[in-house]
Amino acid sequence: MKKLLILGSTGSIGKQTLDVIRNSPGKFKIVGLACNANVKLLEEQIKEFKPKFVCVNNQELEFKSGNTKVLYGENGLLELIRKADYDLAVLAIVGAAGLRPAIEIIHAGKSIALATKEVMVLAGKLVNEEIKKKNKELQKKGKPLIRLFPIDSEHSAIWQSLASGQHKEIEKIFLTCSGGPFRNKTTEELQGLTAEDALRHPTWNMGKRITIDSATLMNKGFEVIEAKWLFDVQTSQIEVIIHPQSILHSAVMFKDGSVIGQFSLPDMRLPIQYALSYPERFKNSFPRLSFAQMKTLTFDSPDMNKFPCLKYGLEAATTGGTLATVINAADEIAVRLFLDNKIKFPDIANIIGKTMRKHKNIQNPTLGEILKTDTWARETAMKISNDLKIK
Amino acid sequence: MKKLLILGSTGSIGKQTLDVIRNSPGKFKIVGLACNANVKLLEEQIKEFKPKFVCVNNQELEFKSGNTKVLYGENGLLELIRKADYDLAVLAIVGAAGLRPAIEIIHAGKSIALATKEVMVLAGKLVNEEIKKKNKELQKKGKPLIRLFPIDSEHSAIWQSLASGQHKEIEKIFLTCSGGPFRNKTTEELQGLTAEDALRHPTWNMGKRITIDSATLMNKGFEVIEAKWLFDVQTSQIEVIIHPQSILHSAVMFKDGSVIGQFSLPDMRLPIQYALSYPERFKNSFPRLSFAQMKTLTFDSPDMNKFPCLKYGLEAATTGGTLATVINAADEIAVRLFLDNKIKFPDIANIIGKTMRKHKNIQNPTLGEILKTDTWARETAMKISNDLKIK
Repeated sequence: MKKLLILGSTGSIGKQTLDVIRNSPGKFKIVGLACNANVKLLEEQIKEFKPKFVCVNNQELEFKSGNTKVLYGENGLLELIRKADYDLAVLAIVGAAGLRPAIEIIHAGKSIALATKEVMVLAGKLVNEEIKKKNKELQKKGKPLIRLFPIDSEHSAIWQSLASGQHKEIEKIFLTCSGGPFRNKTTEELQGLTAEDALRHPTWNMGKRITIDSATLMNKGFEVIEAKWLFDVQTSQIEVIIHPQSILHSAVMFKDGSVIGQFSLPDMRLPIQYALSYPERFKNSFPRLSFAQMKTLTFDSPDMNKFPCLKYGLEAATTGGTLATVINAADEIAVRLFLDNKIKFPDIANIIGKTMRKHKNIQNPTLGEILKTDTWARETAMKISNDLKIK
Repeated sequence: MKKLLILGSTGSIGKQTLDVIRNSPGKFKIVGLACNANVKLLEEQIKEFKPKFVCVNNQELEFKSGNTKVLYGENGLLELIRKADYDLAVLAIVGAAGLRPAIEIIHAGKSIALATKEVMVLAGKLVNEEIKKKNKELQKKGKPLIRLFPIDSEHSAIWQSLASGQHKEIEKIFLTCSGGPFRNKTTEELQGLTAEDALRHPTWNMGKRITIDSATLMNKGFEVIEAKWLFDVQTSQIEVIIHPQSILHSAVMFKDGSVIGQFSLPDMRLPIQYALSYPERFKNSFPRLSFAQMKTLTFDSPDMNKFPCLKYGLEAATTGGTLATVINAADEIAVRLFLDNKIKFPDIANIIGKTMRKHKNIQNPTLGEILKTDTWARETAMKISNDLKIK
């Protein structure tokens, strides 16, 4: 039985992770759960999975915990990561808050099933270096090396496809993208779109911010950055392909011209399960893809003039350093304002672009510099958006 | 440098194999070439590749051979297979004539890059048993085990996709099929079609018989049988999918619901190269697939009433024994008559079906029984077609 930590257990990915575990009885043992503030749901999870530890970020909340030991706040979370006995940590904490825990899991010598894309977007280079360093140490001690297993459906698809060749044989990566709900809108129509419009038809079961990020293609920009660090390729080797049906989840072209891709119906439980079950595949009863019923799959190039956020993501992937941190922070601010109906849809890209231009990039940032940049970018984006609203 | 035999070097696959070798200088050494009768082309191949041996089936032909030793006929071919020093034999001899050489290569303890689908269609079970037996012997001696590397684009795609999971994790195989040039014709229209119509628009660069077999879907029926034996699955695990663009060359669904598939532009040189370069992939300059340019991939179920040959193939795959031999032989006769404009397009299926019904299946045939069945089926199909023509 694989022993797991689920960090972010009450969020969208956390809940689906528990569903996967529920569907594979006898395969996993949950050692610890962590959430931000939804203690009502956490209570139920404690009752069902009886973890040894839980950690709640919000220190003021009380709840029934039975025999489970309760920790609080970021320090409690880091303690959980250091002290608990587990094989794999599912990291599904929302946003930049996942960064410090990620580094701590690596220092603890444990593998990560990674849903929090900010970890690689903000600190991909640093995380890779920490893993390398830790693995040298583990290798000397004859202990199993740690790995990063992506949970994002696209990165899981790339990972699964890579099995058909060697890393040095990668020619390029096709990163697929639904195009979002607004892909067929004109630039003029984009002006008038509301948060409600964007949240109406998500293909995937996911949170609000990522739904908006999917509409702006910012999410795809982040995924390019993530792919670059996860798979150690150049940005120029990554091609984003619009594929509205979300059936082909990404593909890899090898240097002989052969392209290997991964398909399934859109269901996050599949990449979650693969990250947990790897190197095995577990039987499940998730709905199956039928090509004959599917009939048509379409592909196209993205329009980066209409969706500049993707262009920004590619720029940050190429540039490296703290630029991706700036984009992520500015996007978080802008998306929140858009969800509150305080800015227009194209203002999201506008705010991100303007924040980027004010930033002085740091090429090889420390964790401290990344977090400082994050704070700076949030403040700057907020100022820029206030100026926007005045006009 | 991998040392190779190319058996069938002047045919479509043989020529493309030499093109692959030409494009990977320093990777391969050709030890022997064999052809049926095209000694004019063989002369050029001898000049270019300077093999140690060649073998020509037709004993009466003379040609310039330089320092190359010349062998003749089936006995010469078997001698070449037994005596030459090579790592891998590319078997691209047309039809049932490839069967005895295949068994001989296995007995010689060498791996096969297999283009001659008749080997697995007629004798898949026997060939697998021979390989198993030989590998036990090789294992005892500490020698490298032999393998069968498929060259057919569909089976190569399945093979490449299988790298992403274990054999016991296969749930099903999607075997793609262009549908042939007549897929949109009505049953009435099929009546009037000529060989010229069928030969006009092949997607692939291939021989005449396989072009007709692609139009009747008989080829796909053979591929189902081949897939069953190559990948050790049940016929019920194989689903044929019509995919007219021939870009997705087949796919594997694993038991977690994840589907891994292989794409490329239709170019036989890619699966040929993979069979030769495996476990590596060699860089080449073959044209590359672009999803964004491709725009649309379509999929559908085959119409087995309109194309009964596929149904016959599935029946033979399920039944096993000598039934596939009967179908192959009857098809070869029928296709030749169709190419000579002596029968109508639907008569091909008609002749095959009628020959099948006259056959008493032998469940675990010897090589002798398979070859005897082959002869019987040819004679029977010829009689049936004579009856057809009289009407």
